Amino acid sequence: MSRFWSKVVHGLTPYTPGEQPKLTNLIKLNTNESPYPPSPGVLEAIRAATTGDLRLYPDPDSTALRQAIADYFGIARDHVFAGNGSDEILAFAFQALLNHEGPLVYPDITYSFYPVYCQLNGIRAEHIALNDDFSLDLTAVPDHAGAVIFPNPNAPTGQSVSLEHIAQLCRRLPDRVIVVDEAYVDFGTETAVPLVKDHPNLLVVQTFSKSRALAGLRVGFAIGQPELLAGLERIKNSFNSYPVDRLASAGAIAAMEDRAGFEHDRQRIMASRAWVNEQLTVLGFNVVPSQANFVFARHPQRDAGELALALRDRAIIVRHFRLLRIDQHLRITIGTEAECKALIEALKEILA
Amino acid sequence: MSRFWSKVVHGLTPYTPGEQPKLTNLIKLNTNESPYPPSPGVLEAIRAATTGDLRLYPDPDSTALRQAIADYFGIARDHVFAGNGSDEILAFAFQALLNHEGPLVYPDITYSFYPVYCQLNGIRAEHIALNDDFSLDLTAVPDHAGAVIFPNPNAPTGQSVSLEHIAQLCRRLPDRVIVVDEAYVDFGTETAVPLVKDHPNLLVVQTFSKSRALAGLRVGFAIGQPELLAGLERIKNSFNSYPVDRLASAGAIAAMEDRAGFEHDRQRIMASRAWVNEQLTVLGFNVVPSQANFVFARHPQRDAGELALALRDRAIIVRHFRLLRIDQHLRITIGTEAECKALIEALKEILA
Repeated sequence: MSRFWSKVVHGLTPYTPGEQPKLTNLIKLNTNESPYPPSPGVLEAIRAATTGDLRLYPDPDSTALRQAIADYFGIARDHVFAGNGSDEILAFAFQALLNHEGPLVYPDITYSFYPVYCQLNGIRAEHIALNDDFSLDLTAVPDHAGAVIFPNPNAPTGQSVSLEHIAQLCRRLPDRVIVVDEAYVDFGTETAVPLVKDHPNLLVVQTFSKSRALAGLRVGFAIGQPELLAGLERIKNSFNSYPVDRLASAGAIAAMEDRAGFEHDRQRIMASRAWVNEQLTVLGFNVVPSQANFVFARHPQRDAGELALALRDRAIIVRHFRLLRIDQHLRITIGTEAECKALIEALKEILA
Repeated sequence: MSRFWSKVVHGLTPYTPGEQPKLTNLIKLNTNESPYPPSPGVLEAIRAATTGDLRLYPDPDSTALRQAIADYFGIARDHVFAGNGSDEILAFAFQALLNHEGPLVYPDITYSFYPVYCQLNGIRAEHIALNDDFSLDLTAVPDHAGAVIFPNPNAPTGQSVSLEHIAQLCRRLPDRVIVVDEAYVDFGTETAVPLVKDHPNLLVVQTFSKSRALAGLRVGFAIGQPELLAGLERIKNSFNSYPVDRLASAGAIAAMEDRAGFEHDRQRIMASRAWVNEQLTVLGFNVVPSQANFVFARHPQRDAGELALALRDRAIIVRHFRLLRIDQHLRITIGTEAECKALIEALKEILA
């Protein structure tokens, strides 16, 4: 507390990101990064952009990056918004599009940044409870919702909802903004981007930090009709004119164009996920069926916090959330094949 | 206007950044970038960081970057905050530190983003009028101020206030936050950083976009006592955990360490400023004495808007603000020696 702080600051409980350890010999399965590096073409594009032109501001409209994203999805560039990671875009969306008289509705178990954005913006939230198997039933969204947001697949559970259910929700609440946070969509979930043309109330948010292996560059994007994007732009241009820098833009454009590398890596990650799933099940874990680049699992006989510590002792870090309903689960990022093996070996030791 | 927008969006008049033209054959004297590229060591540091590690999130605390800044100023790292350009830091400061019961006080002629931040945060502003020569008298700040912000040197006028006057203000309003926005400080103004140790209410904000030639990377920083920085951090960590990316951090660290290149370039820019000043005066302009990397000038017989258009016809772009008291002035960035010559030649033609 401080006499120098504005009133809003005193009430905040900021988001805690997963640890970014300074040690390099750890197996890092805690923040859902890609286990594979960006492709050589991406690194080459960044090096090519590392010139004296860095003295100049980037394009405030990220025109070239938005065009590359539009081309990938086969949509118009005016349906694409770019930002400093999908977290920044979510922050803009909470302020620009999700603050209404009715409550903002989201799942009780979900991305733990959502309640923080609500605090920051004074938004009243209402939760819908996930089913016992952690599946999300969108018909449970109440008609009095002021707006709706959910990740698809959900985090940290990894479960998806179908496009049909999303379209139904958009039709049922045509005057309410529906944000689908697709950070993990590329690991087995269908994207809602094709629904955007029919639903002016739908905003789809994606990131370069997971399936596109560029968490270190901070780039995310949103796809929606221009009316929604104009709201985001008004906030962005009242906050920071140039959030996407020249090198981040160059790297993201090259990543978007590298369809083969993208496809190759996501298939590998999904194959490793199937293997981890199977191995964990053999070890007695209950594993939530995941469409993400992580699994969410609990062991019926072992405390999740203790398991996380025991893994840490073996130089493997996973994520444990001390939150209602999920404090006995671990969220484990799918690593390389070797990292997945090391994880299973360590768990065998710990459980022995 | 849209039914999908939150209430705050409807009342916003976003900031308009200076044009970033796509044409490369223009002489760009409109957004106060450095005319000289970052040093080879900076580009080399970025290339060295362009590795597979870009798949990993950056350090959310920007520890290494903050240490490099702390070392430069000879202060402790816990007195340094880093962000995605000084605009992002200002945005955080308006939300975290400048929203109080009393009005936020700033000059009537100043950085035109300040009123936008006020709109976004619902902050009541009160202006103090610059003197006729555009100098800023800090004794005019009223005792009922809730907080104070001003650029030093001021923009777009280029005039500075002394450290003694800043210290006086900090002492006179010990319970009020005073933000000194030092975007242009390295071109002839003394930094207020040494005052921070004695004034827990003082926040100094700087950027890598001007004197450090990295506008394309988006890095800025603030220096203040930990109590003030904790307010910024709470907002930042409720907004976006990792705003400074890996390459921006690598480039900024190298730029901070390159003292010789920094010194060399800023001396060249100040020498060119003196020459431009002299030449403009010969051409009949009234030139405001500038401590920044731009000059602010008017011609008593020629309309500023027409002059800007005539320069544009000759492929030179400068900044013209259609604002009260300054709509007959042009703000002209100091370019390379050749660009400065081309500017003066073009003006000779236009005025002939």
